[in-house]
Amino acid sequence: MLIHEDRLFPSDPGQRRIAKRLYSQVRTLPIISPHGHTQAAWFQKNEPFLDPATLLVQPDHYIYRMLYSQGVSFEDLEIGQPAVKDARKVWRIFANHYYLFRGTPTRVWLDFVFEELFGLEERLSASTADKYFDTISEQLERPEFLPRALYERFNIEVLATTDSPLDSLAEHEAIRDSKWKARILPTFRPDAVVDPEFVGFRENIAKLGEQTGEDTSTWAGYLSALRNARARFRSLGCTSTDHGHPTAQTADLSAAEIERLFHRVLAGSTDAQQQELFRAQMLTEMAAMSMEDGLVMQIHPGSTRNHNRKLYERYGRDIGADIPRPTNYVDALRPLLDRFGNERGLTIILFTLDESTYSRELAPLAGHFPCLRLGPPWWFHDSPEGMMRFRELTTETAGFYNTVGFNDDTRAFLSIPARHDVARRVDCAFLAKLVSEHRMEEDEAFEVAYDLTYGLVKKAYRL
Amino acid sequence: MLIHEDRLFPSDPGQRRIAKRLYSQVRTLPIISPHGHTQAAWFQKNEPFLDPATLLVQPDHYIYRMLYSQGVSFEDLEIGQPAVKDARKVWRIFANHYYLFRGTPTRVWLDFVFEELFGLEERLSASTADKYFDTISEQLERPEFLPRALYERFNIEVLATTDSPLDSLAEHEAIRDSKWKARILPTFRPDAVVDPEFVGFRENIAKLGEQTGEDTSTWAGYLSALRNARARFRSLGCTSTDHGHPTAQTADLSAAEIERLFHRVLAGSTDAQQQELFRAQMLTEMAAMSMEDGLVMQIHPGSTRNHNRKLYERYGRDIGADIPRPTNYVDALRPLLDRFGNERGLTIILFTLDESTYSRELAPLAGHFPCLRLGPPWWFHDSPEGMMRFRELTTETAGFYNTVGFNDDTRAFLSIPARHDVARRVDCAFLAKLVSEHRMEEDEAFEVAYDLTYGLVKKAYRL
Amino acid sequence: MLIHEDRLFPSDPGQRRIAKRLYSQVRTLPIISPHGHTQAAWFQKNEPFLDPATLLVQPDHYIYRMLYSQGVSFEDLEIGQPAVKDARKVWRIFANHYYLFRGTPTRVWLDFVFEELFGLEERLSASTADKYFDTISEQLERPEFLPRALYERFNIEVLATTDSPLDSLAEHEAIRDSKWKARILPTFRPDAVVDPEFVGFRENIAKLGEQTGEDTSTWAGYLSALRNARARFRSLGCTSTDHGHPTAQTADLSAAEIERLFHRVLAGSTDAQQQELFRAQMLTEMAAMSMEDGLVMQIHPGSTRNHNRKLYERYGRDIGADIPRPTNYVDALRPLLDRFGNERGLTIILFTLDESTYSRELAPLAGHFPCLRLGPPWWFHDSPEGMMRFRELTTETAGFYNTVGFNDDTRAFLSIPARHDVARRVDCAFLAKLVSEHRMEEDEAFEVAYDLTYGLVKKAYRL
Repeated sequence: MLIHEDRLFPSDPGQRRIAKRLYSQVRTLPIISPHGHTQAAWFQKNEPFLDPATLLVQPDHYIYRMLYSQGVSFEDLEIGQPAVKDARKVWRIFANHYYLFRGTPTRVWLDFVFEELFGLEERLSASTADKYFDTISEQLERPEFLPRALYERFNIEVLATTDSPLDSLAEHEAIRDSKWKARILPTFRPDAVVDPEFVGFRENIAKLGEQTGEDTSTWAGYLSALRNARARFRSLGCTSTDHGHPTAQTADLSAAEIERLFHRVLAGSTDAQQQELFRAQMLTEMAAMSMEDGLVMQIHPGSTRNHNRKLYERYGRDIGADIPRPTNYVDALRPLLDRFGNERGLTIILFTLDESTYSRELAPLAGHFPCLRLGPPWWFHDSPEGMMRFRELTTETAGFYNTVGFNDDTRAFLSIPARHDVARRVDCAFLAKLVSEHRMEEDEAFEVAYDLTYGLVKKAYRL
Repeated sequence: MLIHEDRLFPSDPGQRRIAKRLYSQVRTLPIISPHGHTQAAWFQKNEPFLDPATLLVQPDHYIYRMLYSQGVSFEDLEIGQPAVKDARKVWRIFANHYYLFRGTPTRVWLDFVFEELFGLEERLSASTADKYFDTISEQLERPEFLPRALYERFNIEVLATTDSPLDSLAEHEAIRDSKWKARILPTFRPDAVVDPEFVGFRENIAKLGEQTGEDTSTWAGYLSALRNARARFRSLGCTSTDHGHPTAQTADLSAAEIERLFHRVLAGSTDAQQQELFRAQMLTEMAAMSMEDGLVMQIHPGSTRNHNRKLYERYGRDIGADIPRPTNYVDALRPLLDRFGNERGLTIILFTLDESTYSRELAPLAGHFPCLRLGPPWWFHDSPEGMMRFRELTTETAGFYNTVGFNDDTRAFLSIPARHDVARRVDCAFLAKLVSEHRMEEDEAFEVAYDLTYGLVKKAYRL
Repeated sequence: MLIHEDRLFPSDPGQRRIAKRLYSQVRTLPIISPHGHTQAAWFQKNEPFLDPATLLVQPDHYIYRMLYSQGVSFEDLEIGQPAVKDARKVWRIFANHYYLFRGTPTRVWLDFVFEELFGLEERLSASTADKYFDTISEQLERPEFLPRALYERFNIEVLATTDSPLDSLAEHEAIRDSKWKARILPTFRPDAVVDPEFVGFRENIAKLGEQTGEDTSTWAGYLSALRNARARFRSLGCTSTDHGHPTAQTADLSAAEIERLFHRVLAGSTDAQQQELFRAQMLTEMAAMSMEDGLVMQIHPGSTRNHNRKLYERYGRDIGADIPRPTNYVDALRPLLDRFGNERGLTIILFTLDESTYSRELAPLAGHFPCLRLGPPWWFHDSPEGMMRFRELTTETAGFYNTVGFNDDTRAFLSIPARHDVARRVDCAFLAKLVSEHRMEEDEAFEVAYDLTYGLVKKAYRL
């Protein structure tokens, strides 16, 4: 047996009993996945997933980051290849190093997938590598392991992808127009056309102009093009935008300043500081558009992208070498909040990779400004300890009702149930602690558990 | 029943038994409240408190901050009105939103007040709102709910208020001269006359000159005026000063530099940096005066005041929109410590809103410099989790004896017993953990529990 | 009895049982001490330690820091004297203040030493001070308390000292050449010759030239001299270097820039920023040499040294007045990592005094770059709570296998077993929590406990 039915519950018997009672009420609630990185194409095509290595190892930066840190090369893992050639070899390398994941959420997620999905019960290791490979490979060919079948089996009610404004969203459209009644929605992530440091930024803006029929060489045309793109996303059910800037900096420049800055940015003649200022201004512009069209904003700041120069030059972005940095919110958000902070019609969901901001800045901000909500623990902190810290550090100031439930934020479709299960268990464990210490009564904990699992996410993301 | 007799104790049965034993010894010790924001006038006039909304909702920024964050307007809460017109309506709004406070210290404090003071046992909600309103209203008219009666019922031994140097302290004087034998002391909080950014700064300094008969247009006269004002406070039992600067920055300028800076500040021709430098210098000047007159210094840095521009413009300060910011102590305090750090006759009590400084800067500083002590967890961190973190993060480096017991720091007089009770329970819970893990023996834990409740605060604040 | 056999284990009975089982397997494993500040001369001379005050109080900045913070003067403790004149008086002062250490690791270490080494069972206090003094004094004269006997009794397998490149290492050589088969190794700590702010920096470089026969007035000669010195250390078994800079800043300048900077530094004409840049460059140079000779690098950044100006002027460095400061790793290490980050032959062990970096920067860095490992909790954080936080904050991202076991880092030879015992107990307690919450199975926890105690340190330090 790989996973225990009481996993992640407190060991104190009194707390555990309460946690189990709470969890039993939320365990089977539908999954709302309002932010993640799955591909609509999987569901549109509904083709079988390939072998275990391609499915589980190669695309998962949590996994190859750890393997790489312990001396496994990208060559051996066939990272950066169009397709995995020797999937069994890659799988064996992974299996030989599975002990590295002890104590990590990756281990929790994978053991869940192995047992719940594939019926495996012996631990993955060098000696079981081939059994795993064969068992998983065989099952991936069965109809019940096709993407749509899994989506239904996972009891997913809504699944949001994350998409560039330049994306045609053809797959989303095809799903919508199909008979399959899933709710797979795009999310408007405009980094490619609002971040001057994004690769191909100026070409992207030109392309945005073409797609929308706007003259994106003018500030007004550029804004119109963004509005058009947002409208196109909304027509396919999109309810939110997402912004992955290096910092949380916002700005509120005068019309003349903005126009000047925009033309400099387009001309490619800006320095790092001006590029930061442009991104900052664009967050405020996005908030202004959200005031018009109702899209919820998500801000994911504070990642130092591509920190490994040599790997970046060879393999590009998103290869497990993004490192968090200290992130300020109190000054950074002020220009935007000065303008829109008191708007009850606006929702901005804040994320962080800098846990020192939970109690210092984020909970006080979300506990005051009506437009602000706290996103769940993100990325490195999407883990049992990380989730517990999030609740311990934010609840006393922001309460539960300025948070928005869980995001799985994953590229690994198969891990979605595992990730939501971890969040539900840890929230129930936290609530059980409060109940057992008489800081909350159990009937209230049941309500809160439901809200953290299902109610708050639907409300916050307007789903 | 709203509050459980074992609330806030660990659920582990062994730890809980120890915590209860410890708590039973400190539960009824008198309350020493060396820092807070109650009004001497309440006790001088001894008039009944008004209705529940005016007493409990309207002045409590913990409460309306949370309501505001969830879309309740200041208009609906009648914030900023000279008096609450429809107290029942305000109370009902609060009751309808009481679920927002689940898991927050506000909930713990209020439930204590509701049950212990007013005998209420059903949870506050929309359906019990009127019952609460009527029950509380009725009792507030009884003699045993007058401020002086409550002071005695609360078993308060000392209560310090926080006062401007320009305050006449007439109420303190009247209490002193009355037959009522309470110990209600002023605290010297000179922000209004040492912070160039304080509203009316220059007028305040002129007024200080008039009050003290000194020429505050000269540096020497200004210092004399401050000395006079401190002496006046001391004559009414004041033992401490309090300083609420944006940062912990101190300075130790030459006489010539100071004088030049003072005149620029008086002329109103300084920029933000020079204003900061003046405040920094004034902390060191205050320390110098404390060397003379023995007043204990409290430094409360790191709050970004009035972060909500629109609310500030309409409602002024202290409306729940102060947000903590990263705060440095290691560099900031150095000029002051270079001059006075080794003085055993000086006591400076440090507070923080940036919990990352507990183990990094504050505990190491207090664990070395004889003049430094650590104040209890402040504001957003005056909560069960916050208190536990404070002990976990400071004790191993600074020990217990470089801390100074609890401050309730409250504007909400009725919550004083509740707040001290939380602190006593959490400290006992922390000690119980140490005892149960054989990191401390129980006889020592009894001594420490007493010191944390009663001994250290009297010593540190010279009461 | 001073120490309980179950000390530091969780009080939850289920967790405690698991912790005890795990601990029973690692309790008696040999001590590997790869980083510390003991003196080779003790073992070379093998003379009795002097009285209890000289042995236990005077050299321990953890102790006199705390005493000083509570008003005990350095004069009374005879700090800064060539020898303690009235050892009994100093000891009594310490005993009278022993209560200050409640809840601190110093208390845990000392009680272990008192009971395990000296057979004392009554708590140290004013009333037992003399009994302690006499008992310890008497035993220190016995042959089984000589340094070599203790080394053997402590079951030490390797003990590393920390040494200047200018040190003759004569004692290490003498030990090597003796019949005594202990493994006492030097560590190359070049601060004195790579940090322009180090007292006597230029003289040190000249001396380094003399010792190595290189012309250290040229950049090439200086590097050769450092290489020679490293080779001399390696010939005596040294496997690692150590770097105690104010920050973690690294640099990777062009050859021309370096040479220019080196000459400015030698001329003494640099400002603080250039001195920082030189140190930064030297970290990268040290990494380059480690690529050649295989020495493992340790970086201990972020201490504001000599924060108490008056004590520094009178007593010099290392007197308990070093205060941690906020420390950045993500930007600071980038130049070095750009050049060497992907080298699997290089090992760099990172330490911190800023716990906010554990989850934000250090675990993500060590969880990606193959050259990076995380050192154990350091200095103020070498404590039960500190160790627990380290595991809670780093494991989920970096795993266990990017950490390197325990360092006692001590000047207090007698406390070595106590310190390793604390680390073993806390690691077992952490693992017991994981097992009891079904986040790890017990057979794996046994493997991890062994690795954290013995396996990882030998591998990381190449011992």
